Amino acid sequence: MEKVDLLVKNAEVYNSYLKLFEVADVYVLKGRIYYVCRETQKAEQHGLEAERVLDGSGYRMLPGFVDIHMHIESSMMTPVSFGERAAECGVTTLVSEPHEIANVVGVSGIHEMINGAKDAPIDIYYGIPSSVPSTNSSLETTGGVIGFEEMKHLMDEDGVVCVGEVMNYRQIIRGDELEITKYLDYLREEDPQAVIEGHCPSLTGLDLAKFLYRGIDGDHTEHTLAELRDRFANGMFVEIQEKMLRQDVLDYIMENRLYEHVSFVTDDTMADELMEYGQLNHVVQTAVAMGFPLEEAIYCASYTPARRMNLRDRGAIAPGRKADFQLLKAAECGNFQPERVFKDGREIYQKGAQKKQKDTYAFPPAFYDSLHLPELTARKFIPAEGIAGNEAEVRVIQVQDGCTQTKEVRVVMPVEDGRLRWEDSGCMLAVVFERHGINGNIGYGFVTGDCISRGAAATTYYHDHHNLFVIGSNVDDMLVAARRLTELKGGICTAEDGGIAAELSLPVAGILSEEPADEIGRMLGKVRKSLISLGYRHYNPIMSLCTLGLPVSPALKLTDCGLVDVVKGKIVPLVL
Amino acid sequence: MEKVDLLVKNAEVYNSYLKLFEVADVYVLKGRIYYVCRETQKAEQHGLEAERVLDGSGYRMLPGFVDIHMHIESSMMTPVSFGERAAECGVTTLVSEPHEIANVVGVSGIHEMINGAKDAPIDIYYGIPSSVPSTNSSLETTGGVIGFEEMKHLMDEDGVVCVGEVMNYRQIIRGDELEITKYLDYLREEDPQAVIEGHCPSLTGLDLAKFLYRGIDGDHTEHTLAELRDRFANGMFVEIQEKMLRQDVLDYIMENRLYEHVSFVTDDTMADELMEYGQLNHVVQTAVAMGFPLEEAIYCASYTPARRMNLRDRGAIAPGRKADFQLLKAAECGNFQPERVFKDGREIYQKGAQKKQKDTYAFPPAFYDSLHLPELTARKFIPAEGIAGNEAEVRVIQVQDGCTQTKEVRVVMPVEDGRLRWEDSGCMLAVVFERHGINGNIGYGFVTGDCISRGAAATTYYHDHHNLFVIGSNVDDMLVAARRLTELKGGICTAEDGGIAAELSLPVAGILSEEPADEIGRMLGKVRKSLISLGYRHYNPIMSLCTLGLPVSPALKLTDCGLVDVVKGKIVPLVL
Repeated sequence: MEKVDLLVKNAEVYNSYLKLFEVADVYVLKGRIYYVCRETQKAEQHGLEAERVLDGSGYRMLPGFVDIHMHIESSMMTPVSFGERAAECGVTTLVSEPHEIANVVGVSGIHEMINGAKDAPIDIYYGIPSSVPSTNSSLETTGGVIGFEEMKHLMDEDGVVCVGEVMNYRQIIRGDELEITKYLDYLREEDPQAVIEGHCPSLTGLDLAKFLYRGIDGDHTEHTLAELRDRFANGMFVEIQEKMLRQDVLDYIMENRLYEHVSFVTDDTMADELMEYGQLNHVVQTAVAMGFPLEEAIYCASYTPARRMNLRDRGAIAPGRKADFQLLKAAECGNFQPERVFKDGREIYQKGAQKKQKDTYAFPPAFYDSLHLPELTARKFIPAEGIAGNEAEVRVIQVQDGCTQTKEVRVVMPVEDGRLRWEDSGCMLAVVFERHGINGNIGYGFVTGDCISRGAAATTYYHDHHNLFVIGSNVDDMLVAARRLTELKGGICTAEDGGIAAELSLPVAGILSEEPADEIGRMLGKVRKSLISLGYRHYNPIMSLCTLGLPVSPALKLTDCGLVDVVKGKIVPLVL
Repeated sequence: MEKVDLLVKNAEVYNSYLKLFEVADVYVLKGRIYYVCRETQKAEQHGLEAERVLDGSGYRMLPGFVDIHMHIESSMMTPVSFGERAAECGVTTLVSEPHEIANVVGVSGIHEMINGAKDAPIDIYYGIPSSVPSTNSSLETTGGVIGFEEMKHLMDEDGVVCVGEVMNYRQIIRGDELEITKYLDYLREEDPQAVIEGHCPSLTGLDLAKFLYRGIDGDHTEHTLAELRDRFANGMFVEIQEKMLRQDVLDYIMENRLYEHVSFVTDDTMADELMEYGQLNHVVQTAVAMGFPLEEAIYCASYTPARRMNLRDRGAIAPGRKADFQLLKAAECGNFQPERVFKDGREIYQKGAQKKQKDTYAFPPAFYDSLHLPELTARKFIPAEGIAGNEAEVRVIQVQDGCTQTKEVRVVMPVEDGRLRWEDSGCMLAVVFERHGINGNIGYGFVTGDCISRGAAATTYYHDHHNLFVIGSNVDDMLVAARRLTELKGGICTAEDGGIAAELSLPVAGILSEEPADEIGRMLGKVRKSLISLGYRHYNPIMSLCTLGLPVSPALKLTDCGLVDVVKGKIVPLVL
């Protein structure tokens, strides 16, 4: 008898090549699929004997899902915690792009994400961040910079599989000389087959072609149907995230059988959403519910993403491939809630089993002390002084529900003793403190629209530079919120009537928590509710709040350098 | 105005993603596709101005074909000559597996094939030979050996894209320790995404799974439909060569839409066939003539093979991809005879243009002096001496038309003075002289069946060890043929009535000619005709002759070590 490690008997096994389910016995040896014995072959005497036998009757067996475009830091979890939650969702491989932590601590942050993933129950690979800082240092101050040399060295490291999300698409098609364009030139010569992921919403025609011409041929952003068609026709690999699950999009893919050029991805998922809805399984489930064929949906969540990332050793239940699979009750397969999940032949999740506690990975000491701030006093919350006259017109950021883009509006405020009397203007004061210990910048602005209308909120999770952002209707609450974050060494919180209303501590680089996934989800959920109760009217108030400083997303944003006119790509004065 | 290098206007351009033709203007910059401007986009003012404009009206524009499983040495041409001929066939990328030259001169032979390809008009990549020698040194003597260390170093060299054709499939599934299995173990740890090509005719079920389990997941051999189905179902990438172009095979692929797991390949093509029929274009043309959809056939000859080899920079006419394309008269597209062929945006073939002459690449001096033989005298053509009695039963190789496999038959021959009186037995005498200067072995055998019945033939192109093989009805002609090859420093020739009937000189390592492709084709065609006139009744007499020493192809073969019982894997005596 030949010994193997595991046998899953009689499950309905998904075949990624024929795109169908077939009843089979699946044998596993040393973490790989050894033999898929189909009904017709069972009569043969193969002489295999398994150490462990699982009865798969009544179950469907699917390959572990592969999510190739996501950002672990968006969940504010560590790689281990995220990996544990992803495992519960049937996801066994992730490709994460760690530009958030790179903005705070540079290359060492990426190394810690790589090392910190080694104890995760699943495989976590990385794309190298290509846009850190997201623009250039005169628009925002970051704690780390990823330049040409850093990219070159990172690409050779274990666990790195691609160039992640090239974001500066406008500059690239204009032909600007950037660190990333130098690196793209280098790759064309030295590694012409490298996988390079992009981010190019709205580009079409010659502009899209120019982006593709640089070798950047994957995109996960949101498109109109016309934009989507242009991407497919020009050889862009299309990564579909939840907001792209529209009927016209799915219909186009189905009608043209473009499955092989598509994969599902999650991009950004916050901890509370992750706990409530799931990870890639939620996207797949939604697509299937909208009529995307089940067999194609599984293929687009396992086979195509693995192939896109040149991870040839996974993505299918077939001999030689990694034994990464999930068992779902056959009758409930469309829900994509696995009962058991295996990675490299080892069981990593069983429904109802005890969950692991706090991640024990230790980041370097400096990561737990990443807030380098001046003393926070009321004096620092004065947006402008020495203004002539008794009123002034100021630029105001208008938050719009439904997107992370803002509008610029103008508001006239009274002036007293040369200072703006903003408190009754209906605008919230917003202040950004540079917190990486670089230059002590403070940026001031005002916010209106679908944002909070009372109390205050503060966050050190503030895209992409992650300086300390404080917003509020009054300086007292703003001070309470900001000071609380200095005590917590980072986080996100709300304040009202002089006290903290809700908080999530993010002590690792000011952007991650080491708590278990459900604890983070619970705390974040409270912050979310608190923001809503303070007046936020956005479908995702946390995302909206945390992107008010992202200078690549139009139109008016606030960084430590001041107000950024994103379209013009420059700092503009608060007072006109 | 933005300057580009080339514009092909108004051709019907093949789209590899949508799998259709669409009229478009294709702009090329620095060897890459820059922009594919479709009818609907032509109204836009894109401001591109091309250095050179070609009118593509009435033409179809296809990606350059990509042949990922072939052996340049089978053509007896150098890489440059082969590349020139391939270019005429619309082929712009080859992946060749150079085990023939490696059997003669080892690693240096592979290096020379890599270097010798640099002046070729097309891209020639290599798979590293994993079975040199094809069996082990007690069954055949080779001039080179490719072991674990050699494979490890070769894989890192520029121009190497995969592990080529692992052939010892029986030993591998039995779990024998071989150089290649050591290397497969190493790859699993160090380079788990490496592309590994296989050769596993007739394997199915658990045996096939065991082969796949080692990471070998491409196969180009001939199969029954049941074997083929088993390959697809288990994730084998299927490479279809001409002899697999059967209706049942094509129908199965079409019915199950398995195109993405299929590519067309040529494997072995001899010079005269190459001149007469073409290269990969001939396989594609045949498939289309048999009902394989044109659009899918192009895809399986460009997109899928490029992807299989992780050559992400080609295989489609799309922005960022190499400008490797061919123009065919629209009305004659199904013939796959290009009018013009471009590689990296440069025109490398135009129908009717002057052809290049002899390849000027200089191999190292030792390559031109690779026949290390004793003086060839009649004395060396005595197959056995000191035989008791007046007759003896001997093993005879029976050639069978239609395949390279042989049968073992027994023939009783008279014995005189202890020697076999074979001349009137109807059997041809066959002698193999070890020619690498290793041990001076001489192997003796007899051949019958669909082989020559008079005169003699000799070849130093003798799979895979390429020792000097001489066969004939009489020693005089055999001596004439063998001596001629020593003068030519290698080649293949026939002799009749004391003189040379036809010959092709192969002075490079005794297996390659530096003449232009058509000259080699012409000479080889004469040898082929001569073999037929001497009685050969095989569909490919040259292939049959040159594989009579291949000890991995059943059943009885002759090497310098003697008669090989291939199934038992051992040397067996001539006289029973």
